[in-house]
Amino acid sequence: MVEVIHDIFSMQQQAERIRRSGTTIGLVPTMGSLHEGHLSLIRRARNQSDVVITTVFVNPTQFAPGEDFEAYPRNLERDVTLAHDAGTDYVFAPASGEVYCQDHLTYVTVDQLTSVLEGKFRPNHFRGVTTVVAKLFNVTRPHIAVFGQKDAQQVVVIRRMVRDLNIDVEIVVVPIVREPDGLAMSSRNVYLTDEQRREAPVLFHSLGQAQTDIVNGERSCGVIIRRMRELITSRSSAEIDYCSAAHGESLEELNSIPSGKPVLISLAARFGTTRLIDNIQFTVEKET
Amino acid sequence: MVEVIHDIFSMQQQAERIRRSGTTIGLVPTMGSLHEGHLSLIRRARNQSDVVITTVFVNPTQFAPGEDFEAYPRNLERDVTLAHDAGTDYVFAPASGEVYCQDHLTYVTVDQLTSVLEGKFRPNHFRGVTTVVAKLFNVTRPHIAVFGQKDAQQVVVIRRMVRDLNIDVEIVVVPIVREPDGLAMSSRNVYLTDEQRREAPVLFHSLGQAQTDIVNGERSCGVIIRRMRELITSRSSAEIDYCSAAHGESLEELNSIPSGKPVLISLAARFGTTRLIDNIQFTVEKET
Repeated sequence: MVEVIHDIFSMQQQAERIRRSGTTIGLVPTMGSLHEGHLSLIRRARNQSDVVITTVFVNPTQFAPGEDFEAYPRNLERDVTLAHDAGTDYVFAPASGEVYCQDHLTYVTVDQLTSVLEGKFRPNHFRGVTTVVAKLFNVTRPHIAVFGQKDAQQVVVIRRMVRDLNIDVEIVVVPIVREPDGLAMSSRNVYLTDEQRREAPVLFHSLGQAQTDIVNGERSCGVIIRRMRELITSRSSAEIDYCSAAHGESLEELNSIPSGKPVLISLAARFGTTRLIDNIQFTVEKET
Repeated sequence: MVEVIHDIFSMQQQAERIRRSGTTIGLVPTMGSLHEGHLSLIRRARNQSDVVITTVFVNPTQFAPGEDFEAYPRNLERDVTLAHDAGTDYVFAPASGEVYCQDHLTYVTVDQLTSVLEGKFRPNHFRGVTTVVAKLFNVTRPHIAVFGQKDAQQVVVIRRMVRDLNIDVEIVVVPIVREPDGLAMSSRNVYLTDEQRREAPVLFHSLGQAQTDIVNGERSCGVIIRRMRELITSRSSAEIDYCSAAHGESLEELNSIPSGKPVLISLAARFGTTRLIDNIQFTVEKET
């Protein structure tokens, strides 16, 4: 059976005991409201480690004022059942006051990588993410931590934090899980009206179109991005925050699609008040 | 015999092995140029843990441009001998390029506590300290870490970082070690000319005078600080950066000396280009 732990001290003691016994720990940090995407992370952790800890914590510091922190869907009982069925041993579900003291003053920040893409539209978002992930690493002491490719920039930022701070955790990334019509799974999809839900797969289609363009030889990011924007705005009511083609590690915007380097094509768009993100990451083989 | 380790990977693997064997690790982070103050930290670590790791690393990120990073005294061979004699098992002495990648982007910051006292005069100093200490914790995986009361603000800042980031390390603080004439031991004392060296104990005397004033019933911080400044400037050529009476944890400046709360009286002064700091920390008992 899964054990649910609410306080930091117990979780830290338990993790230390597990670690000292020579058993490996796989961590899956989530904000709960688990869907198939999260479950694929848990299954991966299950495959790659002896003990799986899934954390369920809606982290206030990664929401800006006016974002959906209060409205964010919460259902711990359901999450515990789903996490258990996917192979979780411990659910760590602390209260907000347990994670942040009232006079909390310490933050982990990653420069540059966090001022573009999502960082431009969500001030302090990544500072909240890196701070809570650093804390969760210290509390759960994992050997591996599993994240979804859905939050592509988050993966880049966390990888950098782990390298720069010499954190002894292997970051494992799992592909995006999609609905049958292509919409990337997200806890925020429940906010969509029926009409918005019918339109939302256009985000995925625009990424597919970009990929087709590139396969057909298009290398101009200006052209590729313009065609993505045209597709999205002609087929939906979505307001685009950004459409980007960037280097997959430095996140620097690209003028043309290079060969032999990781490329991240990513976007964020709002359907009414619901903000969705999606991306594809790939490397064009060097011609021989 | 002491083992000297230069690379992060070896140190991290070794620390993990030690930890898994159920043995406790005591860390003493230093910038080398060891004196009796450092040796008292090492002896304390020796008393409180099974394995002692002393790190010797002149950390570039805690020096501002124009400070003495280049000139800072370095002598690893001597440091290794002294560290060994005081009870060190491992000296971790990485090169600067081993600790910071060229594209290092991640920092640990503690707000508020770092913008006063030393932080006012040494921009980014504490960001460098907390970042390197977080890294050294991740590399050496200590159960306890020993710091000197000499760097009083550093102790306050690191304690806060450890609490806020849930770092599972006990912070142990060791009293200031002084020369026979009262001057606090410092690696920077070697910079002093003979005359400056003769004058420098006035800093300690000013702290002693403050303590006497308080014992005699003086409670006005304005009066206490003014008398400290007068003593220093009348008896030496020192230029005072600050003289402060602050709460020992929040570091907020005090108007009057309270009872039952920690008080930190601290100062920084320059003798020519050599900047020295000193402090006393105490709690006035509540009258019954």
